[in-house]
Amino acid sequence: MTGTSPAVRGRFITLEGGEGAGKSTQLRRLSAALAARGIDVVTTREPGGSPGAEEIRGLLVTGETGRWSPVTEALLHTAARRDHLERTVWPALESGRWVLCDRFFDSTMAYQGYGLGLGRGLVETLQRAALGDFRPDLTLILDIDVATGLKRAAARPGGEDRYERMDRAFHQRLREGFLDIARREPERCAVVDADTDADGVEARIRAEVAARLDLAP
Amino acid sequence: MTGTSPAVRGRFITLEGGEGAGKSTQLRRLSAALAARGIDVVTTREPGGSPGAEEIRGLLVTGETGRWSPVTEALLHTAARRDHLERTVWPALESGRWVLCDRFFDSTMAYQGYGLGLGRGLVETLQRAALGDFRPDLTLILDIDVATGLKRAAARPGGEDRYERMDRAFHQRLREGFLDIARREPERCAVVDADTDADGVEARIRAEVAARLDLAP
Ligand SMILES: Nc1ncnc2c1ncn2[C@@H]1O[C@H](COP(=O)(O)OP(=O)(O)O)[C@@H](O)[C@H]1O
Ligand SMILES: Nc1ncnc2c1ncn2[C@@H]1O[C@H](COP(=O)(O)OP(=O)(O)O)[C@@H](O)[C@H]1O
Ligand SMILES: [Mg+2]
Ligand SMILES: [Mg+2]
Repeated sequence: MTGTSPAVRGRFITLEGGEGAGKSTQLRRLSAALAARGIDVVTTREPGGSPGAEEIRGLLVTGETGRWSPVTEALLHTAARRDHLERTVWPALESGRWVLCDRFFDSTMAYQGYGLGLGRGLVETLQRAALGDFRPDLTLILDIDVATGLKRAAARPGGEDRYERMDRAFHQRLREGFLDIARREPERCAVVDADTDADGVEARIRAEVAARLDLAP
Repeated sequence: MTGTSPAVRGRFITLEGGEGAGKSTQLRRLSAALAARGIDVVTTREPGGSPGAEEIRGLLVTGETGRWSPVTEALLHTAARRDHLERTVWPALESGRWVLCDRFFDSTMAYQGYGLGLGRGLVETLQRAALGDFRPDLTLILDIDVATGLKRAAARPGGEDRYERMDRAFHQRLREGFLDIARREPERCAVVDADTDADGVEARIRAEVAARLDLAP
């Protein structure tokens, strides 16, 4: 508690979806749009987003696809998440800033819970142990055909492709996992069709944010 | 399952206690004593004991004392533990070998649960999520006066001293934590007075192992 804490906490918005859905692209666009309204916005990503979590990220996004078992992987993602929340997200929200995050716990559920077959129970237990009942105010799930998403992702530079290299059936389970998450928590999650050009996706995202977070459109 | 799996699983023995209690010293001695009886022994340690877990160890045992919060730290230890079990401990036990491990989950309970104030509940939840009901067959808790242990540890070479550098009260909570764990699980845990010379400690350990694992002394 400091004398300068504002009465109003910032909003926490997460972007989710498979590889190449356009999360990073749309995060930048949404951040610019909110900033243009005078909102103080922080953008961040998972795994990573704090110095310690970025070190853990290095263990997760490179190397052989079978490097970690699904349970170990879920634990590492959860460790990185806790560090990211404590060092970056919670302080920013407390100070009244909005936080836009590229992936969050729904990715652990989709990738490890659905994609790698760990199931919902264990992932939920870990998230609750690590985060209590902290949740995003809004989660935008960018939905795209698997082949289209992977084609977009492959065209991107960089060696962080451990998940991209997993097989097609994995990516299909991932997509269905995200849609199932959205069905279970419709208040928090908005599914956005991401299979059009970036301007079209941006317009749909802005409409969801305005409607769900009660902003003038 | 392979055609060569023996009918009898090996035994899993863990050594626990504060810094400088003599765990590493006694692990080597116990390993030699069991090998001399013709037992096929693997020695290992935590955090670490498998290539992935050793990478996670690097994040845990070096750097500033406040580098990770207690929750993040417990998650990282648990991730390393799961990898270590899957890649090293479980395969060895399945093949009939005995495994001696320098620290295991009681260290997470003592360091994060008692020493850093996380409490028993969260640590138990994480261990159960990651390990199910897997438990050591025998845990030897080496008990020593805090000042004596730290003096021994300080005389040791090497830069893995992040925990050693924590304050005296922390190490006192740690010692009491280990003793409390032993009181709660007396069937699994033997407290061994470690405040004599190494030969004396070794003799007490051999007596506990013989009695509790039903070996001729
Ligand atoms: N709506 C879109 N249509 C076509 N290409 C896109 C679209 N959105 C993003 N891209 C491009 O596809 C690639 C993957 O987008 P990116 O935002 O990095 O996806 P993600 O972060 O979800 O993996 C990038 O090269 C990006 O420029
Ligand atoms: N019983 C003992 N008496 C005196 N010194 C000991 C004894 N056991 C171990 N040591 C020495 O104390 C230091 C710490 O022992 P070590 O086995 O590394 O402890 P731990 O692994 O529990 O931290 C080492 O230098 C070791 O040689
Ligand atoms: Mg991206
Ligand atoms: Mg040691």
